Amino acid sequence: MIETVNAYFQQHRQRHLEELKQFLRFPSVSALSEHTGDMTRCAEWLAAALREAGLEHVAVMPTEGGHPVVYADWQHAEGRPTVLIYGHYDVQPAEPLELWTTPPFEPDIRDGKLYARGSTDDKGQLLLHVKAVEAFLRTTGSLPVNVKFCIEGEEEIASRHLPAFVEQHRELLAADIVTLSDTSLHGPDQPALMYGLRGLAGVELVVEGASSDLHSGLYGGGVPNPLHALTQLLATFHDESGRVAVDGFYDGVLELSERERTAFRQIEPEESRLLDELGLDALFGEAGYSYLERTTARPTLEITSLSGGFQGEGIKPIIPRQASAKIACRLVAAQVPERVMDALEAHVQRHAPAAVRVELKRLLTGNPFLTPIDHPTMVAAAAAYAEEYGVEPVYLRSGGSIPIVEVLGRVLDAPVVMLGFGLPGENLHAPNEHFHLRNWDKGLSTISRYWLKLAEG
Amino acid sequence: MIETVNAYFQQHRQRHLEELKQFLRFPSVSALSEHTGDMTRCAEWLAAALREAGLEHVAVMPTEGGHPVVYADWQHAEGRPTVLIYGHYDVQPAEPLELWTTPPFEPDIRDGKLYARGSTDDKGQLLLHVKAVEAFLRTTGSLPVNVKFCIEGEEEIASRHLPAFVEQHRELLAADIVTLSDTSLHGPDQPALMYGLRGLAGVELVVEGASSDLHSGLYGGGVPNPLHALTQLLATFHDESGRVAVDGFYDGVLELSERERTAFRQIEPEESRLLDELGLDALFGEAGYSYLERTTARPTLEITSLSGGFQGEGIKPIIPRQASAKIACRLVAAQVPERVMDALEAHVQRHAPAAVRVELKRLLTGNPFLTPIDHPTMVAAAAAYAEEYGVEPVYLRSGGSIPIVEVLGRVLDAPVVMLGFGLPGENLHAPNEHFHLRNWDKGLSTISRYWLKLAEG
Repeated sequence: MIETVNAYFQQHRQRHLEELKQFLRFPSVSALSEHTGDMTRCAEWLAAALREAGLEHVAVMPTEGGHPVVYADWQHAEGRPTVLIYGHYDVQPAEPLELWTTPPFEPDIRDGKLYARGSTDDKGQLLLHVKAVEAFLRTTGSLPVNVKFCIEGEEEIASRHLPAFVEQHRELLAADIVTLSDTSLHGPDQPALMYGLRGLAGVELVVEGASSDLHSGLYGGGVPNPLHALTQLLATFHDESGRVAVDGFYDGVLELSERERTAFRQIEPEESRLLDELGLDALFGEAGYSYLERTTARPTLEITSLSGGFQGEGIKPIIPRQASAKIACRLVAAQVPERVMDALEAHVQRHAPAAVRVELKRLLTGNPFLTPIDHPTMVAAAAAYAEEYGVEPVYLRSGGSIPIVEVLGRVLDAPVVMLGFGLPGENLHAPNEHFHLRNWDKGLSTISRYWLKLAEG
Repeated sequence: MIETVNAYFQQHRQRHLEELKQFLRFPSVSALSEHTGDMTRCAEWLAAALREAGLEHVAVMPTEGGHPVVYADWQHAEGRPTVLIYGHYDVQPAEPLELWTTPPFEPDIRDGKLYARGSTDDKGQLLLHVKAVEAFLRTTGSLPVNVKFCIEGEEEIASRHLPAFVEQHRELLAADIVTLSDTSLHGPDQPALMYGLRGLAGVELVVEGASSDLHSGLYGGGVPNPLHALTQLLATFHDESGRVAVDGFYDGVLELSERERTAFRQIEPEESRLLDELGLDALFGEAGYSYLERTTARPTLEITSLSGGFQGEGIKPIIPRQASAKIACRLVAAQVPERVMDALEAHVQRHAPAAVRVELKRLLTGNPFLTPIDHPTMVAAAAAYAEEYGVEPVYLRSGGSIPIVEVLGRVLDAPVVMLGFGLPGENLHAPNEHFHLRNWDKGLSTISRYWLKLAEG
C-alpha cells in the first residue's frame, strides 16, 4: 500500500509543488489588518484544495471576530480511528523585505529548498496531510483512517479565537488522535517526536508598607521596608541548589522514566557550547537533573521582574510604599496551575515578613501538555518515522508553551502527536524562510505510513 | 551685661524688624536663574548690614560659578574663642503663589508672626547673629568672643560650591566653634540642641547572568537567574530582627550613652500616633533600640530601589540579563563611609550566588556628624537656652544628612553647634512660611548669653 501512494507522490510531485507555491503566494499575514482580504482568499483557496483532494463537508467557518477556520473531513473508514489534523494557513509578517534573496510571496526553489514565507511554518507542512489524503483516495478510493482537518488563521497571533471555537465545535471536531506538523526534525534525517510542553502559572507578588514613600534618612531603620520584605520573601522560594522550596510545588509532577532519561541523554546539548552561546560561566539549576531535563521536563519558578523605588539614574533615598515581583512558573504534566498557585499563596502567607502587607495576584495560567512516549499512537508515529528515515526518532519536550496544543488535547480528550518535518535553521519568523523538499517527500510518506499503522491498530 | 544688650534689643526692636523685612523683600531664589540679579542685590544688602553692625573685612566673595559668599569678621576679643557663624541668604522658590495669604516677598506681621519666604529659613534666624553683634558693639564697644560670618547663597541648592570654598579659604574661616541657626526648637518654649546627623554610603549592586535576556520557558530552570541571585544576596544583608548582618558594618559606631538614651526617652514619639500617621500595622527595626534611636542614632542599610526585567503591565516571560538594587546606608559617628563600602564589598563577594557576576558600584558618600552633648561648647549652649527659656533643651539627632554641617566641622576641625529658633509648623519650603517673633526676641538674647558663656570659658 505504501508503495502505491509513494509512487503517486513521485508521479504528481511537480503538480503538488506548483499547488504549494500557489498556497504560498497568498500574503496571509494574520497580524496585519491590511491583509484581511488575503486571509479570506487564502482560506477559500485552501477549502478548494481540500475539496479537490476528495475531502467532504469542506467549510470556511467564521470565528467570533477573527480569521476563519477551514474545516473538512472524510469519515468512511468504519471501525478505524479518527485523526484530527490541525494546522494554520496564516504566516508571520515578512519584514524586513530587503533581507530576502527572493521576495517572500514569490516562492522559489533553489538547492532543493523551497523559499517563501510560510514554506515550513506552516503551509508546506500542512499541505503534506492534504496531499496524503489525495494520494490514498485517488489510488485506493479510501483512507486507512478517518480524518478531520481544523486549520486556523490565527496561530501567529496566539490562536486568539481557536480555543473558543474548539469548545463550541467539540462534537464536530471529536477525534481519537490529534496530529499536527508544525515542528522540526531534530536534525537532517533525524526525526523527533515532541511529546511534552510546559504549562504556566504567572503571579505577581506585591508587598506594601507605609501609606506613602518615606525619606530613607528620616525613617530608615524605624519602619518596615517593602523592598527588604520582598527580597527576603523571594529568597525563600528556592533552596541553594535551585530546587523550588515551596511545599506542594512539585505535587503531581510525573517523574521522568528511565526510558525518557536515556532518550534525553542522546540529545543533551554540550555544556561548553551552551556556556559560550549564552555568555555564562556556569549553568545553574535543580540538582539531580541534566540541563535538558531541567529546561523541558522539570517545573521551574522564575522571577521575571522586580520593581520598587525610583527607577531613574542615581539614588533617590526613599523607602517606597510598595514593591513587587512577577513570577512565571513553568509546569509539567500533571501539575495543575491553580494548585501551584494555591501552594505559592500558602508559602507567601507562611513566610510573610513582619509589619508589611503581602498579596499574591494570580495573573495567568496554562496547562502543561504531555503525550506519554509509550502511548500506542506515539509508538505508531515512531515506527512510521523509523521506517521512512531509517533511524528511530529522538524524544523531545519543549520548555515553552504552545497553548493550542494543550487545548486541543484537553478539550477533545485525545492524545496529540506532533509530526514535525521542518529543520532547525529554516528561518521560520525570519527572512529567507525555506523548507527542505527532501522532507516534503519524506513527510508525505511518513504521514501515509503513520495512517496505515494507526489502521492496523 | 545681658541686661544691657537685652535693653538694646527692646529699644531697637522696631528698626531691627524693619531691617529684617528689607532683607526678606529680596526674592533671592537660588534655584532660578531669573533671580541671579536678586541674589547679587541681596548679598550686597547683607554686606552693608554686616558693615553697619560694626563688622570688619566685609566682602562679597565669588564662588566658582555659583552665587557669592558674604564674609565679615570682628577679631578683637583677644584670648577669647573664635565663633564662625554660618547661614544662608538664599531661599526656596515661593510657588504656588496663590496659596500665600500675603505675597511671599512682601513681609507681613500677623498674630506675632512674621510671614515671608525666608522668614524662618534662614534670613530671620541669620539676622539674629548680626543684631547681636550690633547690640554688643553699640552698647559695650566690643564682643565677648571673636566672630566670623560665612553666609552662602546656595544652601537651598545643596551648597553646590561651599565645600570647595571652605577648603580654599580654610585659614580665613579658621575658628574654634562653628554655629548656625537654621533648625527648630522642639516645641513652643522647648529648646533643642541638634547634635548629630547621619552620614551616607550609597551603592548599587548589579548582578549579571547571560549576555542577553532569555525566554523563561526555554531556559528557565537551566541557567542562573540574576533576579534570584539578587534577591538571595539582598536577603543576607539583615537578620530577622532588622539588624544589619554585614561583618564590620557597625565598626566605629559610638554607642549611645546612658545620658543620651535618657534624653531620647523624653522625646520618643508615641507609637500609636506614628502608626496612624504612616499607615502601618507595626514599626520594624533593630532589636534593643527605640524608634527614635533607630532612626537617628543607629546606622541603617536601606534598599531604596530594585530593578530588573520588564517593568510594564503583565508578565513578559524572560530571565533578564541583569538586575540591580540601590542601597543607601545611613551612618553615624564615627563610621567611615569608605570602610562601610569595603565591608559591603567583602560581604557581597562572600555571599555571591553561583554562576552570576556581581558588582558593587560606589555611588556617593557623606560623613556622619556628631558634637558630643558634653562638649564644653554644647554645655554653654544648653546653659544659654535654659537661662532664656527657663527649661533645659532636649537633645536631638536627625536621621537625615545636612552635608554642609559635617563639611564645616571637619574642614575647620571645630565643633558645630546648631542653635535653632524656628518652630515646627513654620512652613519652611511651603506657602505662608513664617517666624514667631517671640523667638526673634528670645533668639537675640540666647545668642548673646551663649557668647558671654563662651567668653567665660
